[in-house]
Amino acid sequence: MKAVRFVEVGKPAEIVDVPQPKPGPGQVLLKIGGAGVCHSDLHIMDEDLGLKGPFTLGHENAGWIAGVGQGVDGWKEGDPVAVYGPWGCGRCHTCQTSAENYCENHASLGTMGGGLGSDGGMADYMLVPSPRLLVPLGKLDPVLAAPLSDAALTPYHAIKSALPMLTPDTHVLVIGIGGLGHMAVQLLQVLCAATVIAGDIDEAKLAHAKELGVRHVVNTHDSNAAAEAIGKLTGPRGVTLALDFVGAQPTVDLCVRVVGRNSRITVVGLAGGTLHYAANRPPYGCQVTIPYWGSRTELMEVISLAAEGKIHPLVEKFPLEKAVDVYRRLREGSIKGRAVLLP
Amino acid sequence: MKAVRFVEVGKPAEIVDVPQPKPGPGQVLLKIGGAGVCHSDLHIMDEDLGLKGPFTLGHENAGWIAGVGQGVDGWKEGDPVAVYGPWGCGRCHTCQTSAENYCENHASLGTMGGGLGSDGGMADYMLVPSPRLLVPLGKLDPVLAAPLSDAALTPYHAIKSALPMLTPDTHVLVIGIGGLGHMAVQLLQVLCAATVIAGDIDEAKLAHAKELGVRHVVNTHDSNAAAEAIGKLTGPRGVTLALDFVGAQPTVDLCVRVVGRNSRITVVGLAGGTLHYAANRPPYGCQVTIPYWGSRTELMEVISLAAEGKIHPLVEKFPLEKAVDVYRRLREGSIKGRAVLLP
Amino acid sequence: MKAVRFVEVGKPAEIVDVPQPKPGPGQVLLKIGGAGVCHSDLHIMDEDLGLKGPFTLGHENAGWIAGVGQGVDGWKEGDPVAVYGPWGCGRCHTCQTSAENYCENHASLGTMGGGLGSDGGMADYMLVPSPRLLVPLGKLDPVLAAPLSDAALTPYHAIKSALPMLTPDTHVLVIGIGGLGHMAVQLLQVLCAATVIAGDIDEAKLAHAKELGVRHVVNTHDSNAAAEAIGKLTGPRGVTLALDFVGAQPTVDLCVRVVGRNSRITVVGLAGGTLHYAANRPPYGCQVTIPYWGSRTELMEVISLAAEGKIHPLVEKFPLEKAVDVYRRLREGSIKGRAVLLP
Amino acid sequence: MKAVRFVEVGKPAEIVDVPQPKPGPGQVLLKIGGAGVCHSDLHIMDEDLGLKGPFTLGHENAGWIAGVGQGVDGWKEGDPVAVYGPWGCGRCHTCQTSAENYCENHASLGTMGGGLGSDGGMADYMLVPSPRLLVPLGKLDPVLAAPLSDAALTPYHAIKSALPMLTPDTHVLVIGIGGLGHMAVQLLQVLCAATVIAGDIDEAKLAHAKELGVRHVVNTHDSNAAAEAIGKLTGPRGVTLALDFVGAQPTVDLCVRVVGRNSRITVVGLAGGTLHYAANRPPYGCQVTIPYWGSRTELMEVISLAAEGKIHPLVEKFPLEKAVDVYRRLREGSIKGRAVLLP
Repeated sequence: MKAVRFVEVGKPAEIVDVPQPKPGPGQVLLKIGGAGVCHSDLHIMDEDLGLKGPFTLGHENAGWIAGVGQGVDGWKEGDPVAVYGPWGCGRCHTCQTSAENYCENHASLGTMGGGLGSDGGMADYMLVPSPRLLVPLGKLDPVLAAPLSDAALTPYHAIKSALPMLTPDTHVLVIGIGGLGHMAVQLLQVLCAATVIAGDIDEAKLAHAKELGVRHVVNTHDSNAAAEAIGKLTGPRGVTLALDFVGAQPTVDLCVRVVGRNSRITVVGLAGGTLHYAANRPPYGCQVTIPYWGSRTELMEVISLAAEGKIHPLVEKFPLEKAVDVYRRLREGSIKGRAVLLP
Repeated sequence: MKAVRFVEVGKPAEIVDVPQPKPGPGQVLLKIGGAGVCHSDLHIMDEDLGLKGPFTLGHENAGWIAGVGQGVDGWKEGDPVAVYGPWGCGRCHTCQTSAENYCENHASLGTMGGGLGSDGGMADYMLVPSPRLLVPLGKLDPVLAAPLSDAALTPYHAIKSALPMLTPDTHVLVIGIGGLGHMAVQLLQVLCAATVIAGDIDEAKLAHAKELGVRHVVNTHDSNAAAEAIGKLTGPRGVTLALDFVGAQPTVDLCVRVVGRNSRITVVGLAGGTLHYAANRPPYGCQVTIPYWGSRTELMEVISLAAEGKIHPLVEKFPLEKAVDVYRRLREGSIKGRAVLLP
Repeated sequence: MKAVRFVEVGKPAEIVDVPQPKPGPGQVLLKIGGAGVCHSDLHIMDEDLGLKGPFTLGHENAGWIAGVGQGVDGWKEGDPVAVYGPWGCGRCHTCQTSAENYCENHASLGTMGGGLGSDGGMADYMLVPSPRLLVPLGKLDPVLAAPLSDAALTPYHAIKSALPMLTPDTHVLVIGIGGLGHMAVQLLQVLCAATVIAGDIDEAKLAHAKELGVRHVVNTHDSNAAAEAIGKLTGPRGVTLALDFVGAQPTVDLCVRVVGRNSRITVVGLAGGTLHYAANRPPYGCQVTIPYWGSRTELMEVISLAAEGKIHPLVEKFPLEKAVDVYRRLREGSIKGRAVLLP
Repeated sequence: MKAVRFVEVGKPAEIVDVPQPKPGPGQVLLKIGGAGVCHSDLHIMDEDLGLKGPFTLGHENAGWIAGVGQGVDGWKEGDPVAVYGPWGCGRCHTCQTSAENYCENHASLGTMGGGLGSDGGMADYMLVPSPRLLVPLGKLDPVLAAPLSDAALTPYHAIKSALPMLTPDTHVLVIGIGGLGHMAVQLLQVLCAATVIAGDIDEAKLAHAKELGVRHVVNTHDSNAAAEAIGKLTGPRGVTLALDFVGAQPTVDLCVRVVGRNSRITVVGLAGGTLHYAANRPPYGCQVTIPYWGSRTELMEVISLAAEGKIHPLVEKFPLEKAVDVYRRLREGSIKGRAVLLP
């Protein structure tokens, strides 16, 4: 079968022929319906993240069960499923709660998941090491489900742990209304009654936020003007949750300026910014965190939201053969929404 | 191998020869180190709980891994482990959080676990359907670990969900200082700083509570006197958590009388009492619940407490061959602490 | 000034002349903008609840500050405010968290609040014992705010403590789409992404629920048919939160039938039903509670929701002089939404 | 009466005669039993924190009510009380939950509390602006209670919000076993069953930690050796909560090295360190926070712990007249435990 493969750092992805895998005991074979194309893949090709190639790319995957190994009960051929991406040891306390994204043994696993050290979903078929990593889709289209497993799960996880703070009289700032940010503003509006403020340097993105129901948008190009505009909306309480999907120095700094005491700054974007936390800057009681992906049950919840029509990912479809071209366009910034490869 | 088997309702347990099981794909074979003897087993033999015999009894099990089926990674022969008792589907949202005790599909599983519909641990060997049901013991003796998997896990679960209420200025009432209750008072003292009040109708049990560090004990034989004594300790705030390990009508009624507003009554004992909840009785805001066993990660936490020497189960050891006699003594009430069978 | 007064049990409310109160040190005088008319007032007139008349009725109040006593800082004449209804001691641990609805000293206070033992808001002016009991309204109309202080605060409190359970893949059943229930279905839709099922015996109420955005409605007249219909919607997981705003025996019994394990039944309506909780009925792990009203900060959150246009109470206005007639119509059931008296 | 006064930045404290205050409406007069001497006072005298002198120092106060203003109910002369230190507006959402330490309006109040902008407790009498700022002591000695209001409340608050993470199989690292740290290790041992590791560069402090029941101590002088020793204790999961009561660059850096994923670093000490948070350093999911003091209800809980004999502050008593000398010794580091001034 054809597969889009990472070869080594500094080289582009290659489309090559690889043998179709067979499910061993405890494993599941998936016929891929869609595989999302993520910026992280560019990082894998550009930087040494400790991942050793070659392996098939694609860590946002959904499709149909095509075969189960011995000892796999309760799943049958044809079932539509999404693949949970961050594969942990499955045994530690944290994995047992389904949060394999924080597996206690991650450092010794040798892989971060399918498409992240192990063979991923940019191929006709993909091997999943255990059915615990699958989430049933119901009537949801695998092509829509694939990018949700990262682009919606990551903001969902970032938002969910902050929900107890997000009472109706609070403000949430979302910076960066791109692939993850446009999911975040949708998620916030269905998960809580806090007031959402969307920030971006691109007016088209802010217009998109407005279409998605966000009432307050702020262009963050001029940090001072942005901080002032946000302060007028929040009053002295300040922003309660600042979600930064860019993570560059200016956006991180803006978060620090606008949050109040007893607040939270969650940096999801990895554009190289550093948050320098010292006494009273950000204000006392602010919790700062850089989360990673989400848990298995959080993916179930995300899938349920999409199946109920409460969130809508923006998806552009491409045939698998176009992968190299899609990566080029992703690098240029000319992909709108999430690109999904279809074998 | 020899096994203690439930045959059918109304008949006593029998010790018979059965073939030693072999682990299929995804399964684990356990050499039993100890199997706890629980009152629930008498219920199984006496009443129709919907469990179809014959099967090997014993739902509180620990031992050493004696073999793993194909596809089982990360576990090896000789590892000492406890077996998590309430077996769920393993796939639903609730099971994925490790709370198989509340499996969403429990009604259609046909078994409640090993020794509860499936073959349990009162034998030389036991088959565990998945390694997700195992908890490593470290240096903890399997004979001590076996009863913890129920007699400590059940009160631990009942206490854990109430911990956010148990601030240092609150009172917890524990009724029934027997097999589960004597673990509960130990657990409360290491898990929080609330003040514990122990209640029982047996002065020997109250003396045991005192030995375990409880400062306030109340004989609950006379409900009026007990309610008054408890009220003097708590003042107008009342009891914040009432844990009833008896569950008879008089103990449930006592809980209703002594809790304050915004409190919790947790009934664990199943001695036939009913809590009649109507407006303001128990007081407004009281949460009433009858929990069941605990989750996989809660068992990990219990095992850790015992391994650190923070809780101490009272255990009496018997050879497996004495099982029928042990059940007779359990029925008479002449077992002190938890009986554990050793093959 | 004119005031609507409770005289004694068994007698109707009377409109009489009373002197206008003056704020002493620490007190606040309110010019009433609106006073909600609640079923509880009928209970006060019909049954001995331990409240000693005469006193001015009206426990759902909002208006403008008309004067402040010595030592009251930070509030000034003309400020529009809602009055928090359940007055506690203000000193205990629970009151300090703002949850005066569960005041630890409630039994010794001699009053439950304005209109509930102390003079309430069915008059031109009302005395509030402390500014801690006031919530600023911003631009919100006091006539709309008045009923929110009970009819929205009570369901808000009932829902808020259950929010961590209400993940997107869960179901909430709301029984009784009247004064509180029609606020509950609105609140649920803005506070979480769980799926709402509305139940009532009145098709007009179910039609109202649909207008408010609820997709699934069930006529609960026939309990068996209702339980079956609900079970089809939820699947084996069952209902996660059942909110009963009727509280009659058939509605409480229906809740018990439809919830799953690890769920919650919250009975708010006080129509005389009793929930008989025994082993596994309702299912294990279900939490049953009868809450009372809400906290001061929860009222702030409710006011914020209404000010932002996220919830809309259905209000019918009447002049204060019509109070006796309004109570008669309330008893007949011919008031639609919440009646509010305007002085 | 005599009072220890802050005059202006750069000048030492002075003992001068000031008139005895009288309680106005809503206020309470306190006869001081003890006033704790805190390092923060040195910061006030050394740096411009925005506090305008002159005012009486002392922000850790306890004593007996000596008079109440008009409108103050429920408190009477002679009642022993502690004073809650961080005075907020009392009206905002956060203050209403009792967390005045995070008052939303703190920036516009002009004072941070008694001894921190307003007259504090280093005098015979002190004026408290509202009874909401008082906590009853019961039988607890005001001399012991005074330092608890900061030196125990601050670590209590830092620990309390992390309690849900501190399951029995987790590790907590406490760096700096001085005034706050020696309370922290006591608090941890009564509030949860996590394993405590104490770190300090002073072997005497580590010996003190051992006396207080801590089993694992690590000298943090050599960061590499300390990180290795801590890693051996925790295994791959790492430290779950790192509490830094020093807050210098080496201690903050050590925290970053030893925590695991999904953990928390709480920096309480203000010795000038900055935590530079960037992708995966500290590990993903780590929450970093610099909290401030604690809430009113948390002070109630701390007082309750001390009254029950569960925590023991180390206190050295001095007459008020020795204040200047005590500050000198505090600067030198020759005070053991907490100095308390007695008028």
